[in-house]
Amino acid sequence: MDEVLVRVKSVGICGSDLHYWRTGAIGDLIIKEPLVLGHELSGEVVDVGRSVSHLSPGDRVVVEPSSPCGRCRFCRTGRYNLCPEKRFMGDPPNNGAFAEYVAWPAAFVYKMPSGLSFDEGALVEPLSIGAYAARRAQITAGDKVLIMGAGPVGLMCLIAAVTRGATEILVVDMFDWRLNKAKEFGATSTMNARDVNVVEKVRELTNGEYVDVTMETSGSPDAAAQSVKITRRGGTIALVGLFDSVQFEYPLLDVLMKEISVVGNYDGAHSFATSLQIMSSGKFDTKKMITHHLPLDKIEVGFKIMEEKKEQVLKIELHP
Amino acid sequence: MDEVLVRVKSVGICGSDLHYWRTGAIGDLIIKEPLVLGHELSGEVVDVGRSVSHLSPGDRVVVEPSSPCGRCRFCRTGRYNLCPEKRFMGDPPNNGAFAEYVAWPAAFVYKMPSGLSFDEGALVEPLSIGAYAARRAQITAGDKVLIMGAGPVGLMCLIAAVTRGATEILVVDMFDWRLNKAKEFGATSTMNARDVNVVEKVRELTNGEYVDVTMETSGSPDAAAQSVKITRRGGTIALVGLFDSVQFEYPLLDVLMKEISVVGNYDGAHSFATSLQIMSSGKFDTKKMITHHLPLDKIEVGFKIMEEKKEQVLKIELHP
Amino acid sequence: MDEVLVRVKSVGICGSDLHYWRTGAIGDLIIKEPLVLGHELSGEVVDVGRSVSHLSPGDRVVVEPSSPCGRCRFCRTGRYNLCPEKRFMGDPPNNGAFAEYVAWPAAFVYKMPSGLSFDEGALVEPLSIGAYAARRAQITAGDKVLIMGAGPVGLMCLIAAVTRGATEILVVDMFDWRLNKAKEFGATSTMNARDVNVVEKVRELTNGEYVDVTMETSGSPDAAAQSVKITRRGGTIALVGLFDSVQFEYPLLDVLMKEISVVGNYDGAHSFATSLQIMSSGKFDTKKMITHHLPLDKIEVGFKIMEEKKEQVLKIELHP
Amino acid sequence: MDEVLVRVKSVGICGSDLHYWRTGAIGDLIIKEPLVLGHELSGEVVDVGRSVSHLSPGDRVVVEPSSPCGRCRFCRTGRYNLCPEKRFMGDPPNNGAFAEYVAWPAAFVYKMPSGLSFDEGALVEPLSIGAYAARRAQITAGDKVLIMGAGPVGLMCLIAAVTRGATEILVVDMFDWRLNKAKEFGATSTMNARDVNVVEKVRELTNGEYVDVTMETSGSPDAAAQSVKITRRGGTIALVGLFDSVQFEYPLLDVLMKEISVVGNYDGAHSFATSLQIMSSGKFDTKKMITHHLPLDKIEVGFKIMEEKKEQVLKIELHP
Repeated sequence: MDEVLVRVKSVGICGSDLHYWRTGAIGDLIIKEPLVLGHELSGEVVDVGRSVSHLSPGDRVVVEPSSPCGRCRFCRTGRYNLCPEKRFMGDPPNNGAFAEYVAWPAAFVYKMPSGLSFDEGALVEPLSIGAYAARRAQITAGDKVLIMGAGPVGLMCLIAAVTRGATEILVVDMFDWRLNKAKEFGATSTMNARDVNVVEKVRELTNGEYVDVTMETSGSPDAAAQSVKITRRGGTIALVGLFDSVQFEYPLLDVLMKEISVVGNYDGAHSFATSLQIMSSGKFDTKKMITHHLPLDKIEVGFKIMEEKKEQVLKIELHP
Repeated sequence: MDEVLVRVKSVGICGSDLHYWRTGAIGDLIIKEPLVLGHELSGEVVDVGRSVSHLSPGDRVVVEPSSPCGRCRFCRTGRYNLCPEKRFMGDPPNNGAFAEYVAWPAAFVYKMPSGLSFDEGALVEPLSIGAYAARRAQITAGDKVLIMGAGPVGLMCLIAAVTRGATEILVVDMFDWRLNKAKEFGATSTMNARDVNVVEKVRELTNGEYVDVTMETSGSPDAAAQSVKITRRGGTIALVGLFDSVQFEYPLLDVLMKEISVVGNYDGAHSFATSLQIMSSGKFDTKKMITHHLPLDKIEVGFKIMEEKKEQVLKIELHP
Repeated sequence: MDEVLVRVKSVGICGSDLHYWRTGAIGDLIIKEPLVLGHELSGEVVDVGRSVSHLSPGDRVVVEPSSPCGRCRFCRTGRYNLCPEKRFMGDPPNNGAFAEYVAWPAAFVYKMPSGLSFDEGALVEPLSIGAYAARRAQITAGDKVLIMGAGPVGLMCLIAAVTRGATEILVVDMFDWRLNKAKEFGATSTMNARDVNVVEKVRELTNGEYVDVTMETSGSPDAAAQSVKITRRGGTIALVGLFDSVQFEYPLLDVLMKEISVVGNYDGAHSFATSLQIMSSGKFDTKKMITHHLPLDKIEVGFKIMEEKKEQVLKIELHP
Repeated sequence: MDEVLVRVKSVGICGSDLHYWRTGAIGDLIIKEPLVLGHELSGEVVDVGRSVSHLSPGDRVVVEPSSPCGRCRFCRTGRYNLCPEKRFMGDPPNNGAFAEYVAWPAAFVYKMPSGLSFDEGALVEPLSIGAYAARRAQITAGDKVLIMGAGPVGLMCLIAAVTRGATEILVVDMFDWRLNKAKEFGATSTMNARDVNVVEKVRELTNGEYVDVTMETSGSPDAAAQSVKITRRGGTIALVGLFDSVQFEYPLLDVLMKEISVVGNYDGAHSFATSLQIMSSGKFDTKKMITHHLPLDKIEVGFKIMEEKKEQVLKIELHP
């Protein structure tokens, strides 16, 4: 009644999709029955429920893959990403968007501004992750920000940091071609962790002041530990990239002594509208993040490209 | 011992200078003995006190015109603009920068990045007012912002709002040529209050949602009242422009019913470093805000131009 | 299906009920058809909808009178009191609790701790208004707070300020007996606005520092203007009491020059659980706020007592 | 000129004093020349510098052991505890208060309210640590708080949490007599980590919701890891107690997935005035925290009592 039926036009493969595909689970979320993955989509409205008034068939839309309860303490305090009743598209047991059609509550379906393509629309969800993390980290005008990892999430964090007025943005990665992408999206300095001593280099670039905010998107325990070294006293570290290990050696005494705030991020909340607006501002050519287009039925090819990393791959868009 | 002697190169005339020149006072601050005005300056270091290590003669600098005590409850909590012991350059009894030289505590003197001209440097102080107000108003990525007044302060607020990621920025003024300047600095819509019903127009442009933040820089009681109408429920109004009357009719019941936050702004604090970075980012051609250059000894001409408003005047820079 | 049927046990008369009774409207909310008022209630669960699991018949409960949509931008960001789709019990066209039974969504019905009486339960809603306003005003440990007005809302603000650790709490009213109540609830100083010059007295009591936070609950334009005088530089004014006039003379220039934040408050949000916990902490004998008990069918008597103010009246509880 | 000479009356031994005494260093702070330790003091003013106006000989005072520069970026933004130029009493190379007299900048010397004893005055510094950490953790009315460790710092955190309106406060320790003290200061539940499974017990006591804020004062890596388990999604962990190891196994993935904020605390800032007010409110009988009184020349006895832990020891006060 309050749902919308959407014909999928572009849907990106997320690292979490790959993780499910390989292992069948993410933490406690275990796939027990056949499941359709996918949650980064844009499409066209085909039909709307009776009580839906802000959308009509033919509308070009993006879909926020969360559907929280709207009533629990988390929802009431504006943190609906933590809602224990939340349905998340493509997380078991909710089928996702690697499909021709998806139905979803209209309140989480947004009309696309006319200038945006479906491919750009499918990038709104990953951008919303970066926008949310940058907000949680309270990045503000004039900040020095360092981003660990220049994959799709790292680049979206970069865009979010630029948008919020960060004036120096350092990006660290292991691949020069990804660092070059980072420069295109506004990084003021980049460094390849294979070539330089990152802590030393950051100290030098910041005149010994280190950075106000570090966004950890690499998922590497070593990078997590390094983040503590390169963040200034009183600064903030946003954890964004999933770590492979549940626990590992971490310099928590430095977090205390430097009075750092370490801020976890789980999905995101009320960042879709902002991300749509950033996307349609025309300031970032996000399409450059899409390295591959495949028909939906070649999805296994896509997973393999991501897994093998033989090619330069950032975001793969599938088209049903 | 901890002061710096600066040879003034460019110094702007502020509306408050004009006010002192005409009336001899701003509120409780009354000029009782001859006083040198002026507080928006850039210059060159001529000499430094014994304990100054971060500056040397020849350095090109901008000067933050505040010198707070550093010890009171306001200073300790980061609100040094409210320090009751604060010396403010050009406020009685502290002589200001409409002079060949000024001496000031080194901690509030900043080296200019090499790319900036002295004229741009002299605009850092007014930009810091906008940056401070935008921070107090908590403007954030994706916000809709309206700015009342497109004078120098309004335009600096506009730059600050753009920098913080506001995606829709409406500017209201009475002069089309000022609105055109606003467009050059990033306004997405402008309206001349003489030609349109502002409340109606804002309603229309925002699909009935009104704006998240209004920055009142006009100093007009009518605009202040109008700000309450055009700000959305739960939104914020930043008061920046000095009102001519101490009190006037104000729809405070609407502030309550709409749960608006009305936020006063007095000078600014820790916004100079940020403003220098915004200025040197190259994203805004702030020099366009300077409409007149005059030698220091023609300062009276400058005051008259500002007072009579016969010419298109935004910022006048004086050069000793 | 997700509602609960509650047999009303105690229900308080709110100033807004009186206002509706006298004038038929509050602002845009106009009573056009017969309406049952009342929204400060406690009672016993009689029946629950099929999908309700946390409540059963016989449970003693309090009811939060808001039922927001849970989906709009306000709800999503934790400000559900501003939800435009919100149903509010006893606001037209939603019938209220001056009745034997009310039905309400279970998510906004809370089980009462065993130690609380129904009368205390009926005071949770007014306490939640104070707790919300104190939170919006960011009252914190060690603050000096002044409360304008010692009616039920003022006293609830007082309790909220005490709870948050305010160490000096001044209360202003026109009636000594109400000021005496304020002392019982933790006011450290009280003053009768008829006997003393409030501004002068506050200056004296605070060694010229004035207060960190003023909570305006009196609804008097004069008190609103006075609030600006007695609040310190950089302080906060919370607007809680409805003003009779939409607009009036207000010293907005002082708000700007003193960098005060004026914060509107409309109902409240996610303050019920907190208020229940404060209420059951046993630290405040809130029953002392109840001056009258009446059977429900004597409600007109209650309205008249409140209107005429011949007797010492704070809160009147009705019992069906 | 702006200093005050204080005759020490009571001075407490801090865990950090013991650490210096045993090892000669805390992290990078290494004692290279003979040093007088001690920073938790109260005393009597003997003499004041020429520019001191708020204090006179004979005044009973407490001393905040920080003397920051008042000018750097940290000082300017209200975080003077992070000032790199800060002198800290009793940290090398600044002599401390295990002495008959200390001289200190008057701005950090506070007159004691008449009702307070010197022993209570000497407890203001440790209370300020708790008050600061509780503020950084944003403990608010109605919160559920858990405190790891019931030593002096843990008990001060407890007092701070009570003051800010926490309504459920759980305390964990290894000694029953310390847990009993915690109950006297307002803990609503206590548990001995030797007897119960803490995670399981917290789950049970909170109906599976876990706590809003955990304050880690034990300095134990195991407790740090446990803190992550017992803090609810979206909650906060304040790190207060120094860890013995620089780094150790820590479940950082849970911090991310549960969207927890982990907040370091280093000393404290602008918490002295608040702590003095809490102390003089009479709500907490802090003298119960003092287990031993010794003359200053028996200081070695005091260190040994603390080191050997044969006796029930919380705070030892020395008297010159």
